[in-house]
Amino acid sequence: MLEELKREVCEANLELVRRGVVIYTWGNVSGIDRKSGCMVIKPSGVSYDSMSPEDMVVVSLEAGARVEGKWNPSSDTKTHLELYRAFPELGGITHTHSTHAIVFAQAGRDIPALGTTHADYFYGDIPCTRALTQQEVESDYEANTGCVIIETVRERGIDPLAVPGIVVRNHGPFTWGRDAAASVYHAVVMEQVAEMALKTLLLNPQASIQQYVLDKHYFRKHGPGAYYGQGN
Amino acid sequence: MLEELKREVCEANLELVRRGVVIYTWGNVSGIDRKSGCMVIKPSGVSYDSMSPEDMVVVSLEAGARVEGKWNPSSDTKTHLELYRAFPELGGITHTHSTHAIVFAQAGRDIPALGTTHADYFYGDIPCTRALTQQEVESDYEANTGCVIIETVRERGIDPLAVPGIVVRNHGPFTWGRDAAASVYHAVVMEQVAEMALKTLLLNPQASIQQYVLDKHYFRKHGPGAYYGQGN
Amino acid sequence: MLEELKREVCEANLELVRRGVVIYTWGNVSGIDRKSGCMVIKPSGVSYDSMSPEDMVVVSLEAGARVEGKWNPSSDTKTHLELYRAFPELGGITHTHSTHAIVFAQAGRDIPALGTTHADYFYGDIPCTRALTQQEVESDYEANTGCVIIETVRERGIDPLAVPGIVVRNHGPFTWGRDAAASVYHAVVMEQVAEMALKTLLLNPQASIQQYVLDKHYFRKHGPGAYYGQGN
Amino acid sequence: MLEELKREVCEANLELVRRGVVIYTWGNVSGIDRKSGCMVIKPSGVSYDSMSPEDMVVVSLEAGARVEGKWNPSSDTKTHLELYRAFPELGGITHTHSTHAIVFAQAGRDIPALGTTHADYFYGDIPCTRALTQQEVESDYEANTGCVIIETVRERGIDPLAVPGIVVRNHGPFTWGRDAAASVYHAVVMEQVAEMALKTLLLNPQASIQQYVLDKHYFRKHGPGAYYGQGN
Repeated sequence: MLEELKREVCEANLELVRRGVVIYTWGNVSGIDRKSGCMVIKPSGVSYDSMSPEDMVVVSLEAGARVEGKWNPSSDTKTHLELYRAFPELGGITHTHSTHAIVFAQAGRDIPALGTTHADYFYGDIPCTRALTQQEVESDYEANTGCVIIETVRERGIDPLAVPGIVVRNHGPFTWGRDAAASVYHAVVMEQVAEMALKTLLLNPQASIQQYVLDKHYFRKHGPGAYYGQGN
Repeated sequence: MLEELKREVCEANLELVRRGVVIYTWGNVSGIDRKSGCMVIKPSGVSYDSMSPEDMVVVSLEAGARVEGKWNPSSDTKTHLELYRAFPELGGITHTHSTHAIVFAQAGRDIPALGTTHADYFYGDIPCTRALTQQEVESDYEANTGCVIIETVRERGIDPLAVPGIVVRNHGPFTWGRDAAASVYHAVVMEQVAEMALKTLLLNPQASIQQYVLDKHYFRKHGPGAYYGQGN
Repeated sequence: MLEELKREVCEANLELVRRGVVIYTWGNVSGIDRKSGCMVIKPSGVSYDSMSPEDMVVVSLEAGARVEGKWNPSSDTKTHLELYRAFPELGGITHTHSTHAIVFAQAGRDIPALGTTHADYFYGDIPCTRALTQQEVESDYEANTGCVIIETVRERGIDPLAVPGIVVRNHGPFTWGRDAAASVYHAVVMEQVAEMALKTLLLNPQASIQQYVLDKHYFRKHGPGAYYGQGN
Repeated sequence: MLEELKREVCEANLELVRRGVVIYTWGNVSGIDRKSGCMVIKPSGVSYDSMSPEDMVVVSLEAGARVEGKWNPSSDTKTHLELYRAFPELGGITHTHSTHAIVFAQAGRDIPALGTTHADYFYGDIPCTRALTQQEVESDYEANTGCVIIETVRERGIDPLAVPGIVVRNHGPFTWGRDAAASVYHAVVMEQVAEMALKTLLLNPQASIQQYVLDKHYFRKHGPGAYYGQGN
């Protein structure tokens, strides 16, 4: 079942390695088929070197149970499921261990919007969630990781496709998009803009950007007035 | 038309990827044929992987309209056109998203001349422009980006071939040269010297260089007294 | 003798180069066969380019003498032997010159646990040893390097397999594991988390993490309650 | 003439590119044949891509004039000649534009000995020269660059083979050794230890190392008591 989606999700996982945002078995990408209510996700702890589409695991969005596949699904499966349930517009989700995004997660700071590279893809600061409580960590940790992401997105009044990612306090980045490939793309961009932001803050701790520049760059690439690219 | 220039401009765009100063579809390079009054530029939002000379777009310098090509030209086309109109000595222009040049753009600081690697190619500090006003951003943004570059070059009394690049506030680097390849070369050098300058300032915020060292290094490579290279 | 272990140890040494944690002849990996009481280790000062299993050197754990092999063993041989004698659970040991781990060794600071990437593999801060005394350096330096590691692990009450590595003051990282490959894996992870920790501290010198997050991440991958991976 | 030395010097120059310490035509390596009194050096401004031994230029040590070769020698030729004349123990010299060594040159600071990686190759701090005076820059700049290196080495009472390199204020690193390959090796090590030192100072501005550790590490690899490697 879902052979095309398995190929897409497998390819998106392999792209993480090529783009240098994961090593070893770290990170994971999923994609969802809304019609069948099934998510396809990377298996847990399996090497990227030998990964093929048939290694992908199919999980039911509603029940959270494995529907098909020979491996256990990623240990972050429940985080992905919470996000897909809360935000029906998501088609793919990525989690990486990329260095500079993790630096902001560890420092407990938003990745501030300081330039147009950031604004081209993230319409405003990329939030850092609050820390999970001890109870949230000890009971259903991975589901609660999803919940704290959802809480943060909603409290800030963010459209998840306009700010397609977040860093979880002391943990690291989760990104998303209309499909698995888009979520990986956003993971790579987040790592780039996190490195730029860190180094900018070291050079000028008061750096900032005007809202009207953010508006311009985001909306020349997104929405009805967009004019970047080939207009397809 | 302009088949040789299309090859040069395409090759210069692909060099951006090989030198690590862009990823995905980011950045763009153009070249100009002053006789025909036509600029050749990268198409907007097209992948470098499959790019070939016939994908390049020909644009009229005076009218700003597409003369030949199947794609929309780069969204930064008007910025390039403004620069070619203001500075007739330019033959090629490059825009990248290289990390350390953007750091100075985001911090709102010139890239200071601190060493001879810088002085070999840029005769003095690389300016950071002022921020564009809200009106400049909202009306004809890309043309106004070119105008603020021109304003900065003129206000500082800079010979554009002696300081062949600039960083636009909160945006990033634009570089230029006698042809497309030279503008890419200057983009790569700017990224190198920006990284050196950032790290130097972290180690010694008072770092500086004597004017007579800048003079020596620049003029041993440029102008009538140059003696670097093979004297061709 | 120990042909399989020689292959494993040689392969583990070559992995150091592929992962970018050593250059030239720097670093070394060993593995031990507890039954025969023999350690297999990289030869001293031999290039990785031409290294093959038959270049590995076999050394007696008890006597410290070369049992087989045409080369001198690594100059750090005595450090490895001290660690194998003190901690019978170790099967492999790695020493590298990786940049960010060395930065903490040179700064004389523990690599603090600040995030879940760290906690997945190191259950708490990675200690930095005290400096060796002049007498310790001048008499049997390499053995004393092992002794100061053992002293630090014991004084802190650490299970060496739960915190599988350390940085030696002004020197650099030593890591270990159940076999040679695991010790290399920990060396690579230590370098990653050291870079993350350094940059986090530059952005937020007060960064920290809750103990219950460390507990959760470590124990979801290790021990009887682990549920990461395929449960083999 | 000197065909074997030309091969060695060409290969040493190409190694600069492979090790990532130069780009484009930057940097240069020379080697000397003391019997014939001739230095072999890279040509000025020639691309590494197409460089072969016959492109190397032979220059007379005493007269400083080109003896053989179709190209102009490196623009830094006079710096190399001064060093060979002052220090008869040198067999090879390298100049690079490696980022972190240049950071110390631009900051006007010695690269401090903070760890054993440094001490394995450089017996103490790597000096930063004083700035050249205006007169020194304007009259015979490249020869005076050599002179200020020699002055620094002598004023500090350094054995040039024990501290086989220096950074020239606002300029960058020069390294040397018993032959061309050794001088390149020292250039690569200097870049590594400069990066480690910079990041250590950002984490702990008071970092230091005991003299007896420097002694131990240097003398276990160098001199009559050395025991690193295969004792050949």
